[in-house]
Amino acid sequence: MHEELPTAEVERQRDLYGALAQEVRELIDATIRSTVDGEDVEQARAAIAEATARLRKEQIPASFGVRFNSDGTSRPWGNAVVGLRNAVAPPLTIENDPAGRAWSSFHLGAAYEGPPGLVHGGVSALLLDQLLGEAAAAGGKPGMTGTLTLRYRRGTPLGDLRGEAWIDRVEGVKTIVKGHLADADGPTVEAEGIFILPKWARPDFDKHAENKAGRSGAPSRFE
Amino acid sequence: MHEELPTAEVERQRDLYGALAQEVRELIDATIRSTVDGEDVEQARAAIAEATARLRKEQIPASFGVRFNSDGTSRPWGNAVVGLRNAVAPPLTIENDPAGRAWSSFHLGAAYEGPPGLVHGGVSALLLDQLLGEAAAAGGKPGMTGTLTLRYRRGTPLGDLRGEAWIDRVEGVKTIVKGHLADADGPTVEAEGIFILPKWARPDFDKHAENKAGRSGAPSRFE
Repeated sequence: MHEELPTAEVERQRDLYGALAQEVRELIDATIRSTVDGEDVEQARAAIAEATARLRKEQIPASFGVRFNSDGTSRPWGNAVVGLRNAVAPPLTIENDPAGRAWSSFHLGAAYEGPPGLVHGGVSALLLDQLLGEAAAAGGKPGMTGTLTLRYRRGTPLGDLRGEAWIDRVEGVKTIVKGHLADADGPTVEAEGIFILPKWARPDFDKHAENKAGRSGAPSRFE
Repeated sequence: MHEELPTAEVERQRDLYGALAQEVRELIDATIRSTVDGEDVEQARAAIAEATARLRKEQIPASFGVRFNSDGTSRPWGNAVVGLRNAVAPPLTIENDPAGRAWSSFHLGAAYEGPPGLVHGGVSALLLDQLLGEAAAAGGKPGMTGTLTLRYRRGTPLGDLRGEAWIDRVEGVKTIVKGHLADADGPTVEAEGIFILPKWARPDFDKHAENKAGRSGAPSRFE
């Protein structure tokens, strides 16, 4: 979806909605860890319902999608891993370089737990899927995830973590990306993904046919 | 963590905190989709901060963990997939049978988006990790995830979905579990996981040594 937002307006919205979502992340954590009971819980629930009603006065009909700005950047603000408006997302701030590397340092709290005190194995998979996809895109080889394989070497403790990913090799329309999550003692989960360039983004694809379907140019990221 | 909660108290807490977390899930969705601005967002944020402060008056020091009840059931209420107190979790209600099958029907909204209109590939991995682990546990073969492989056959649309998993075979301490997510048109993502029985849960393990470490009996689930 294209919205011709000037950069200053993008920044204003980033601050406004980013701070809102960050407040919701605090609430998620408090909802898990609170030991207050009865009346306190009911009053908290009422305050939350009030906030929700206020926000729902006007809303888009479905999910956020990825919105593109006039300067070519995008706003994947609803994304479940990096979305700054999505309180399910930690969110990860992912850096990358054009050699096809992506990395991020982040903190995972109580909301990402699986085994007691440890990151849910599926949360590690969630974050690695995003990191590997961004490494592929950064290297000019964007694609949809074809396969993703996770190897769990040991439990990943909740807390401060780091993730990184890099393009291992390219085989035609397939880009093979590797990566891992790590704590201070080294990697805890390793990942390998195969990302497949969609037909409409391939050089030999009939762009005219695709343009008729409503796309205008290939975005550099698919999630 | 053991807390000798009678069943009626477990049910009361389930209702109270479950309703609270459900209200937070609504708020997460509204935070992504709202188009209100300025003062409305600030007031919503203030109401959320008030709720968080009320809940944080008393709280546990870290993550929720898995708490066991006196009747042998457990409360994985902080779990990122099935946790009824965790608003990051949809949450899935997973059914199972002792032949080693697990299944769940659920709805994924805007908070689980990756590509526009589609479930984030990593969210599919997150849910399948839990489903496969529960199938292994239901069949009496609980374990930590060793490897998990996802094959993405096509995009998974946001909306009503179903997941299932089953034990494919057992090889010593390894249990191989398969499963998939599906929409109305059939499977969208296939998964295969290898779950490894931890040393302390193996029959030949020195239980005395482990009991000294503070464990009392093997829980049937590790996430």
